[in-house]
Amino acid sequence: MELSHINDQGRAKMVDVSDKDISYREAIAEGTVIVATETMELIRSGGVKKGDVLTVAQVAGIMAAKKASDIIPMCHPLTLSSVDIRFRLTDTEVHIEAVVKCKGSTGVEMEALTAVSAAALTIYDMCKAVQRDIEITDIRLIYKNGGKSGEFKR
Amino acid sequence: MELSHINDQGRAKMVDVSDKDISYREAIAEGTVIVATETMELIRSGGVKKGDVLTVAQVAGIMAAKKASDIIPMCHPLTLSSVDIRFRLTDTEVHIEAVVKCKGSTGVEMEALTAVSAAALTIYDMCKAVQRDIEITDIRLIYKNGGKSGEFKR
Amino acid sequence: MELSHINDQGRAKMVDVSDKDISYREAIAEGTVIVATETMELIRSGGVKKGDVLTVAQVAGIMAAKKASDIIPMCHPLTLSSVDIRFRLTDTEVHIEAVVKCKGSTGVEMEALTAVSAAALTIYDMCKAVQRDIEITDIRLIYKNGGKSGEFKR
Amino acid sequence: MELSHINDQGRAKMVDVSDKDISYREAIAEGTVIVATETMELIRSGGVKKGDVLTVAQVAGIMAAKKASDIIPMCHPLTLSSVDIRFRLTDTEVHIEAVVKCKGSTGVEMEALTAVSAAALTIYDMCKAVQRDIEITDIRLIYKNGGKSGEFKR
Amino acid sequence: MELSHINDQGRAKMVDVSDKDISYREAIAEGTVIVATETMELIRSGGVKKGDVLTVAQVAGIMAAKKASDIIPMCHPLTLSSVDIRFRLTDTEVHIEAVVKCKGSTGVEMEALTAVSAAALTIYDMCKAVQRDIEITDIRLIYKNGGKSGEFKR
Amino acid sequence: MELSHINDQGRAKMVDVSDKDISYREAIAEGTVIVATETMELIRSGGVKKGDVLTVAQVAGIMAAKKASDIIPMCHPLTLSSVDIRFRLTDTEVHIEAVVKCKGSTGVEMEALTAVSAAALTIYDMCKAVQRDIEITDIRLIYKNGGKSGEFKR
Repeated sequence: MELSHINDQGRAKMVDVSDKDISYREAIAEGTVIVATETMELIRSGGVKKGDVLTVAQVAGIMAAKKASDIIPMCHPLTLSSVDIRFRLTDTEVHIEAVVKCKGSTGVEMEALTAVSAAALTIYDMCKAVQRDIEITDIRLIYKNGGKSGEFKR
Repeated sequence: MELSHINDQGRAKMVDVSDKDISYREAIAEGTVIVATETMELIRSGGVKKGDVLTVAQVAGIMAAKKASDIIPMCHPLTLSSVDIRFRLTDTEVHIEAVVKCKGSTGVEMEALTAVSAAALTIYDMCKAVQRDIEITDIRLIYKNGGKSGEFKR
Repeated sequence: MELSHINDQGRAKMVDVSDKDISYREAIAEGTVIVATETMELIRSGGVKKGDVLTVAQVAGIMAAKKASDIIPMCHPLTLSSVDIRFRLTDTEVHIEAVVKCKGSTGVEMEALTAVSAAALTIYDMCKAVQRDIEITDIRLIYKNGGKSGEFKR
Repeated sequence: MELSHINDQGRAKMVDVSDKDISYREAIAEGTVIVATETMELIRSGGVKKGDVLTVAQVAGIMAAKKASDIIPMCHPLTLSSVDIRFRLTDTEVHIEAVVKCKGSTGVEMEALTAVSAAALTIYDMCKAVQRDIEITDIRLIYKNGGKSGEFKR
Repeated sequence: MELSHINDQGRAKMVDVSDKDISYREAIAEGTVIVATETMELIRSGGVKKGDVLTVAQVAGIMAAKKASDIIPMCHPLTLSSVDIRFRLTDTEVHIEAVVKCKGSTGVEMEALTAVSAAALTIYDMCKAVQRDIEITDIRLIYKNGGKSGEFKR
Repeated sequence: MELSHINDQGRAKMVDVSDKDISYREAIAEGTVIVATETMELIRSGGVKKGDVLTVAQVAGIMAAKKASDIIPMCHPLTLSSVDIRFRLTDTEVHIEAVVKCKGSTGVEMEALTAVSAAALTIYDMCKAVQRDIEITDIRLIYKNGGKSGEFKR
């Protein structure tokens, strides 16, 4: 077992994917922002009456998915064909799910995970004036398809 | 209690900090990447013999701290004066800590949290070929100083 | 009368503002997107029931204000202290107004104009599937204050 | 009739183009910068003797075309195969025309419109020291070809 | 013989490559950073005991390769499939070699040259506190393959 | 003698400049592009009749100076107050000189060197269709002032 991002000088490289076929790729990632119930009330009302924390978070997530290869050093640039972000709210959790699709020669899980991370950071940023101990947690891949490695389901 | 990022049309804005004094600011954020013990062995050996996953993650974190206002829509641009990232490894966890400093009129917690997130995503990216169910968790602020709101310690 | 962005070789330069004092700066710019009444109905309902074209446009405008010096070659980088964007809708026009503030040594009119342009392009993008002949028009400065040149009101 | 950029939660998404065929795409957009005759004289002479406002504007437009998906939140990233920008001068107008080409699965009108907008903002920036009431106007698509929706001519 | 980046108005354009076939492309570029022997000792020990100047330079080079079309105005955007950077050290020279691969319709020599330049600037930046007269030199293409123009070897 | 960019874990950091005073900073860097005499004739005529390779290179250099902290990992972000680039042509050399000024807490030599590098790469890019063995050489600092370390002249 070896880390594939390491060259023969023992330093990082962007893995060579020249030989990989172009195929349809999809990845779904998730993450959770844990907030106080008072903060959640503001997020909920913000979504209806006062502005939309979640819409801003979603825009941030979509734009970050397009920037994944600029944020993650060894990540291949890709021309994404779809990004969608959904939210599910409980009393104290904003659950974020990002679906990214692409036709390309590498998978899109990093794009989905980056979208979730940026959406979470944006929710944090917009709520930090009212709560200082927000946490971002459980960022992980839940589905992946396409390419040689086949389907993955958590 | 109100969300400060909302204008009188109920939409997001970048909060006006024109009146805030320039002061010395510091923030420390943390986060954890949970990996299998086999993956951790590769990260550890990578750090010594085969290339340095953690150095790449660190560079990613530092560069992302400088890009926080480009990733997070309502985040103010700042000219950071220091970014440092440290790691502590257990058998199954890479614990990441980012310290960011600035002289400016807004705090640097988003920069510290962005640095942690990007470093975590980079570790994930470089290890995903050997483990598919890595998780990023417990991203949070642990210290903040400077500005009107004073010191915060978790 | 001379173009200040030209050096003694007859080529462009970024004007030297080292001697200018740091002062409070504000600029307000406006612009208009002309759409069909059917498109306007979708924008309006989008704002209430189905998603918020204007919120996305606003996020785009705020993020673009921060990128003005990356888009406009001779524009000085600035650490903006506030960006706010407002909309006024008529039957066939989305009127956009951007207010940008800064403490710095150059004015912020390019940031305000860039915010308006990006918001307008975003409205265009999100409506172009339903109308192909949308126009963006009347982008201009309406107010400017701060610096040696004093106040400007259109 | 529906806005395609809206997901089933009523929020923005990047439209899924995974099913669209890769085809040759072309778009032409235009826009106008309205200036005083004295400003135009400086632009004209700048083009010959003193530096080239229009060349800088053109470079800005070409670079912005490549950044369209970074400026416009729901715009798909594309690998452009050609960008060209032309100017036509009257006594008080700089008329800008941008031609963008691509082989891809979405059209390039946003890239052409972004190129025109950035070129216009750059002309504004380089002339604003001599004239404060410059206007940018009539930004619109004049030609589009490729993809399912076929040819469009204004 | 003509410069291909010039349009019929005598201004720069991004050359039209719509007609070019997609093919496998590879380019290798090199460059040298000249340092004092004392600086070289710090670089060498840095690689083992104190941190890794070269790893940071390598990350910088890889990330810059992905940004080549954002740095070089007329350079086409490409989705790179591989970037690798190697170093060879003598007593007073860090020799940098970058290998870039792509499937696309334009060559990747600018990406390889940009990678070398950014890696060299990063070594300079990290050593400038101990030596002020470092030089970067001999940046050039040493190999290129793919496309109509065939193989090039220096 | 120690490399200042290394933290106590032996990894890179962005050096802490919180304690440094804000002062006026200036740096001048130079570099040379070596071309064939036929290429030089095209560059020269390009400057007069057919488009302006050097103007595009200059715009590239100015824009890259503003992006230095995005290209060079440990480089501090700065709000530059002036960038100017000049050229001197011999039969086979384009000599590039970049002057960068700033009021800030770190020097601007990396910005000046980045400007020179980007201008050189742009000249290379625009001439590579007519000559394949262009070289970029002798990139170095020739003057620096401001800050604790005082004046440097090569």
